[in-house]
Amino acid sequence: MDYEPLFSIPARGAARSVIREILKLTQRPEVISFAGGLPAPDTFPVDLLDDIMSKVLRDRGRTALQYGTTEGDVRLRSQIKLWVASDGIQVPVEQILVTSGSQQGLDLVSRVLIDPGDTVIVELPSYLGGLQAFRSCQANMVGVEQDEGGMRMDRLEEQLQSLRADSVRPKLIYVVPDFQNPSGTTMDLGRRQRLLELAAEHDTLIVEDTPYRQLRFAGEDQPTLFSLDSQDRVINLSTFSKLFCPGFRLAWAIAPPPVFEKMVMVKQSADLCTPAFNQAVMAEYMIQERLAPQVHAIKQLYRRKCETMLSSLARHMPDSVTWTHPQGGLFLWMVLPEPADSMVLLERYAIPRDVAFVIGKAFHFDGSGSNTLRLTFSFPTVEQIEEGIPRLADALREYLATIT
Amino acid sequence: MDYEPLFSIPARGAARSVIREILKLTQRPEVISFAGGLPAPDTFPVDLLDDIMSKVLRDRGRTALQYGTTEGDVRLRSQIKLWVASDGIQVPVEQILVTSGSQQGLDLVSRVLIDPGDTVIVELPSYLGGLQAFRSCQANMVGVEQDEGGMRMDRLEEQLQSLRADSVRPKLIYVVPDFQNPSGTTMDLGRRQRLLELAAEHDTLIVEDTPYRQLRFAGEDQPTLFSLDSQDRVINLSTFSKLFCPGFRLAWAIAPPPVFEKMVMVKQSADLCTPAFNQAVMAEYMIQERLAPQVHAIKQLYRRKCETMLSSLARHMPDSVTWTHPQGGLFLWMVLPEPADSMVLLERYAIPRDVAFVIGKAFHFDGSGSNTLRLTFSFPTVEQIEEGIPRLADALREYLATIT
Repeated sequence: MDYEPLFSIPARGAARSVIREILKLTQRPEVISFAGGLPAPDTFPVDLLDDIMSKVLRDRGRTALQYGTTEGDVRLRSQIKLWVASDGIQVPVEQILVTSGSQQGLDLVSRVLIDPGDTVIVELPSYLGGLQAFRSCQANMVGVEQDEGGMRMDRLEEQLQSLRADSVRPKLIYVVPDFQNPSGTTMDLGRRQRLLELAAEHDTLIVEDTPYRQLRFAGEDQPTLFSLDSQDRVINLSTFSKLFCPGFRLAWAIAPPPVFEKMVMVKQSADLCTPAFNQAVMAEYMIQERLAPQVHAIKQLYRRKCETMLSSLARHMPDSVTWTHPQGGLFLWMVLPEPADSMVLLERYAIPRDVAFVIGKAFHFDGSGSNTLRLTFSFPTVEQIEEGIPRLADALREYLATIT
Repeated sequence: MDYEPLFSIPARGAARSVIREILKLTQRPEVISFAGGLPAPDTFPVDLLDDIMSKVLRDRGRTALQYGTTEGDVRLRSQIKLWVASDGIQVPVEQILVTSGSQQGLDLVSRVLIDPGDTVIVELPSYLGGLQAFRSCQANMVGVEQDEGGMRMDRLEEQLQSLRADSVRPKLIYVVPDFQNPSGTTMDLGRRQRLLELAAEHDTLIVEDTPYRQLRFAGEDQPTLFSLDSQDRVINLSTFSKLFCPGFRLAWAIAPPPVFEKMVMVKQSADLCTPAFNQAVMAEYMIQERLAPQVHAIKQLYRRKCETMLSSLARHMPDSVTWTHPQGGLFLWMVLPEPADSMVLLERYAIPRDVAFVIGKAFHFDGSGSNTLRLTFSFPTVEQIEEGIPRLADALREYLATIT
């Protein structure tokens, strides 16, 4: 049976995530992995959850095990409303949609806004899951370079003008303004304001993805694009995966009412509803005010891990290599001297030394970035970071010696 | 801000599910609802789950709360393999994909196979969630009437020939062969074999949706289309929502390897993975051999409820009305004499009497079926059935008197 002619165009073009495939190569226990974007499992509230789940089953078991509404559990949405209000986002519950992970938020936004060939603007580099969601809707992607302060507004303006010259109105601009995945960069207030101005000038929407935002361990908070926006142009995506645990697949989207309404309809057809049980447990966890202390503890841990990685990099890496200095989140970004190729480094030098990372090319929709790579500091232990960075430095020195 | 020009074509066409909107109208506690397709909440294993969740947290908490693979937890997939083997389906774990509810299975299948304008064949009436998934991929739907034995094969053959005459190769034929939603009908062996022959003759795929299959409380099991198929033409979708509980959103898809592979890629972009915690709990539940006794208990209960509804209908309904006699599942189907319109019955006569159902038109993609309706017997109690059916019969008599 030949299935190929039966596949849809997006299915024919679909490729497995490079990250996920590499992760499989690095699952030997002896490998120190800076690859997967995983939170530290020792932060998961295992013991607390046992009590909270018992309480949920006791108090509301039959509701929590039944189908829920597509919009999400109203108790959880009320808690999210309070949670985001403390971050300067004032919205009614009616604009908060519970999603099955933030990846579903990206999928819903894409399906609501993108027809094949529609243009979306993404960062170079950008979050892989965002690129996958846009690609699955056959978007035409346009990239805007980053520097240490995130997406460059001069380049964005150039791209928008060039699109306008071709009579193309982009559907959305996709940004991760806080501790970006993969680069670790954060946009300052001036850049955020400029981004909103440009979106208004070109009458397009902004998808603001903020999975790491609450994990700031240095520097000053910047307001969300959503809270700065006075024109209802911003869709904000956020998640409990990095604040609580990923294994519950709970996230949320905040959108202007007309967009919210369409997202609900698409979600109905995508999975009917997010697990009611998981939502009930999360609501109880928040009602008991467990989330803020947990986030506080995670930040302390990630600060220590990030500092360990930065000082180990400073001690061991050759001068020709640069990296970002994130103020929060899970990741930092490394640039190798040209013409180094991080894929060669990974396959021939790093994996044989039992150390892994993700190649930067995976985060560039256009296949650029071959001399870049992403390092995760959240998942490995402090000891693994101290052992793994010198290994990586050795691998890199050996590789660089072959090409210079 | 005018969002309309920014919406995708499927989003512009998206409408909220009629069922879900009607459900909202009927949530007053005094309403006896035969509307929503909900399992009986008193069958949910609330007490058992408390112990099982504690065990999962204790034994494997950190893994269960972390990201999982897109394909699903291999312990759960191994249990599903055993479970379906006892139903005559022999497949390796590598062909079993865990999905976030069977609705996601429908969504993934649609996205893997359907480009805008592609033809899919559906039953008249058909499961609403299937229709929504196909519609969101802008499928061209072609309907085939049912009789008491499910989809009519003579009509299917005519439709396939007519499509062939127009040089159209349908991408798939969508059927719910066991205790169909909404009709409650089941296809016999001969019809199943004929369906496979026709699919082969017209070189198309079959999507076999079997959410209710295990809930047979009368008559003889029929083999699945998947197990009868020798040409790898069948994708089987099934779910724990009706066997365990819907609030965990756990289901699975079994597909030929090339289709499986594409479904995994689309799922990666749709939600990365189904909640690892929920999967770990379900695996433990199955390892402890709790599922078979639970399914047994559910069948006893639903038999009693179905028998109650059938005998109450026989006692109270006017002669001009007919209904199906399901051998399992959650639903039965009622046909009113023409020109009765079940929407008028619902809004003007039933809801004022505090009794609700779903109009049959909702299950007909082409807007036909206005004299039909669906009754759920799984969710209401036996007492509610005994009280609600006479109310419905009164409503109907009053309505019929106005139009005859």
